[in-house]
Amino acid sequence: MVQLKNILILGAGLSSTTLIKFLIKNSEKYNWKITVADKIKELAEKKVKNHKNTKAISIDINNTDYLAEIIKNNDVIVSMLPAFMHPQIANICLKYHKHLATASYLSEEISRMGSEVKNKKLLFLNELGVDPGLDHISAMTIIDRIKDSGDTILSFRSDTGGLIAPEYDNNPWNYKFTWNPRNVILAGYGTAKYLEEDQVKYIPYNQLFSRIVKTTIKGIGNFEAYANRDSLKYIDKYNLKGIKSIIRGTFRREGFCEAWNIFVQLGMTDDSYDIINNEEITLREFTNKFLAYHKTESVEKKFKHFIKRYTLNNIYNKFEWLNLFSDKIIPFKNATPAVVLQWLLQNKWNLEVDDKDMIVMQHQIIYQHKETIKKLTSWISVNGKDSEDTAMAMTVGMPLAIAIKLLMTGKIKIHGVHIPTIPELYKPIMRELSKEGIMFNEQVTKIS
Amino acid sequence: MVQLKNILILGAGLSSTTLIKFLIKNSEKYNWKITVADKIKELAEKKVKNHKNTKAISIDINNTDYLAEIIKNNDVIVSMLPAFMHPQIANICLKYHKHLATASYLSEEISRMGSEVKNKKLLFLNELGVDPGLDHISAMTIIDRIKDSGDTILSFRSDTGGLIAPEYDNNPWNYKFTWNPRNVILAGYGTAKYLEEDQVKYIPYNQLFSRIVKTTIKGIGNFEAYANRDSLKYIDKYNLKGIKSIIRGTFRREGFCEAWNIFVQLGMTDDSYDIINNEEITLREFTNKFLAYHKTESVEKKFKHFIKRYTLNNIYNKFEWLNLFSDKIIPFKNATPAVVLQWLLQNKWNLEVDDKDMIVMQHQIIYQHKETIKKLTSWISVNGKDSEDTAMAMTVGMPLAIAIKLLMTGKIKIHGVHIPTIPELYKPIMRELSKEGIMFNEQVTKIS
Repeated sequence: MVQLKNILILGAGLSSTTLIKFLIKNSEKYNWKITVADKIKELAEKKVKNHKNTKAISIDINNTDYLAEIIKNNDVIVSMLPAFMHPQIANICLKYHKHLATASYLSEEISRMGSEVKNKKLLFLNELGVDPGLDHISAMTIIDRIKDSGDTILSFRSDTGGLIAPEYDNNPWNYKFTWNPRNVILAGYGTAKYLEEDQVKYIPYNQLFSRIVKTTIKGIGNFEAYANRDSLKYIDKYNLKGIKSIIRGTFRREGFCEAWNIFVQLGMTDDSYDIINNEEITLREFTNKFLAYHKTESVEKKFKHFIKRYTLNNIYNKFEWLNLFSDKIIPFKNATPAVVLQWLLQNKWNLEVDDKDMIVMQHQIIYQHKETIKKLTSWISVNGKDSEDTAMAMTVGMPLAIAIKLLMTGKIKIHGVHIPTIPELYKPIMRELSKEGIMFNEQVTKIS
Repeated sequence: MVQLKNILILGAGLSSTTLIKFLIKNSEKYNWKITVADKIKELAEKKVKNHKNTKAISIDINNTDYLAEIIKNNDVIVSMLPAFMHPQIANICLKYHKHLATASYLSEEISRMGSEVKNKKLLFLNELGVDPGLDHISAMTIIDRIKDSGDTILSFRSDTGGLIAPEYDNNPWNYKFTWNPRNVILAGYGTAKYLEEDQVKYIPYNQLFSRIVKTTIKGIGNFEAYANRDSLKYIDKYNLKGIKSIIRGTFRREGFCEAWNIFVQLGMTDDSYDIINNEEITLREFTNKFLAYHKTESVEKKFKHFIKRYTLNNIYNKFEWLNLFSDKIIPFKNATPAVVLQWLLQNKWNLEVDDKDMIVMQHQIIYQHKETIKKLTSWISVNGKDSEDTAMAMTVGMPLAIAIKLLMTGKIKIHGVHIPTIPELYKPIMRELSKEGIMFNEQVTKIS
């Protein structure tokens, strides 16, 4: 077997920070050579900090020849680029016999490469971030343990949220953008599907943020969760055939969904059409576009009436705080409602310099052990260390970094296209994560 | 100029009845030859009733050679086929120098043929049904009359509805399917756009059926209207630049929208995904899929709770009457929620043998005449005569039939691609419509 020595990391953005750090640290012991490539060379340079085992280069992803050239010179390719670019990169990896690892959802295209990857004795790893990634690794650890002891899993619920750490939580929404804002604006579009007591349930977008579940996590706080798009596919993904209930959700702080629902109901999260002449209107006029005309009532008053149709709680201050009624003019053209909403939220929800984020993940599994029904709760809360090692960068980067280390050091011996739901992957990764301080808490209670 | 003699009518469905009758009647005086073509030859035969000036044939629209052959033998081609087929037919008409007329919305493809059609001295007429069609013809008659007398139009509102005639209105929804049921189920998907007091307003789908306007039409009854998709494009279409308010809507009987809104809110009108194993479930289970799980509450009780979030009126009986909670099993596979909903509604809303439909249309125009503000209301209610000459068949067929008569007899002299918003078309058509008894009522009141 060829000794793996050279790692290529494509993309040096926020989410690559912890990953690059960890690999550089380990490069000394294992004598790896690490190349970090980014569109902006300075960004790559900033991340590698002139370490002797590293090289920072610039790449243009559209220059396929050059891309192939640098892939050819490495053994393992780590892509932190947007997910749509992965099939192209995977094809080059296949051509030149290179391993591939990403934190993104496994695409159909890459999935179809499975047998070829296996035949070439390669490994293409996907879904090795936090969600997807850490969720699989931690859930499968528990699921297989319960099943291996002969017990029957009846219900599985898993929720994850990227939030602002409590010490820096200083706005009425108890939320800031700790990750891609656009994904937050468009979250939930479509229909959520899940299983509850053997019944498949559908939640349309307009009900999503009012059909939430509240949870208190000991020592961490109160949260609420809205359902993710398709929980049903996790029945196969997690080998849970016969389970009665399965649902995956997204955590927000208490009260967030009720207020977010107002944006949904107004139509402000719509991304399908451009507001006409939006560059000529104020935020107040933007808001007014979604409210019925009234001869004398102010936009504020109409908005208050609208809120009342959805909640009796006084949440008006949340919207006022966002400057939804201000005379500020929208400073760009051809924007959808969602784009305007993102811009106005970014003015208020962006992280401040010293702000720290947090990731909260919780699995709740109900299972039958002989004659008793038990509930296992497993949870973790990871707080960001600083503006580089954010909770998001750590939880996205660590599973990936560890998997690469295990691959480089010969500890992972499987081939093919995989996600970390199989013991050959989740077991060693979970072990290493604990060593790095990423550890889940666990509690089992008897239900009946 | 070549004498026009031969008319080809493609499609002999419900909407062609009045059209074919009218043309056959006129064929005696003008000595026209009429060919009616349908996929099902018997349907065409039934419509032409062996009249000496007619021929019934069968066509397969995919057999382009044969289609071209029969088009070649005619002078004017009338397409009552689904709108997506029109560009293909238009291309053949262009090739063989034939006139074309349809009741469908003018498509981009046909619009782009404009100069070629004009150069060949042909006429391609579109939007010659009821909505679009009769609405343009009647609205432009008034709009141009007001403008020609030097007055300024401030506001334009137009609503149309296909409904069940009051004598046959015997269900709690006061509605039956008098036209394509699928269009009724999917009506309003997307975002409605209109102008009110110089403000562009957007209504998302989930608000559409609660933001309705109520109207009483003298002697006809009480209606409510929800906004159509895009009223803004009628500013150009109707030459109304500078107008302060413009909105087009769809009429339903009072109380319909409030109940329909429940289907929208539940997600039952969704057409984007298939219900899993829908062929194994009952209607009651179908309904339950859109309601949150509850350990003890019945589907009926959960549904009642759900309704209460949207109205204080007692509308539960409307849903019970639809058998929404029955144990009937859905008798087909791979159905979206919208398909299941259409099926269950067709079981209850389909026309009975002797049922008669009605078309109601109303325009409301506010305009400034010197120092006074006036409101002109123009309305029509057409009742179906029998199961052949339904209100829908008459109002779709007559504008088209009259336009063809005018074209055949040399009364329309323009060329190019057109819709009936220009005086060369709407004036003679409106005149002939009156002769046929399709006449609008009009009332002008002083507002201030």
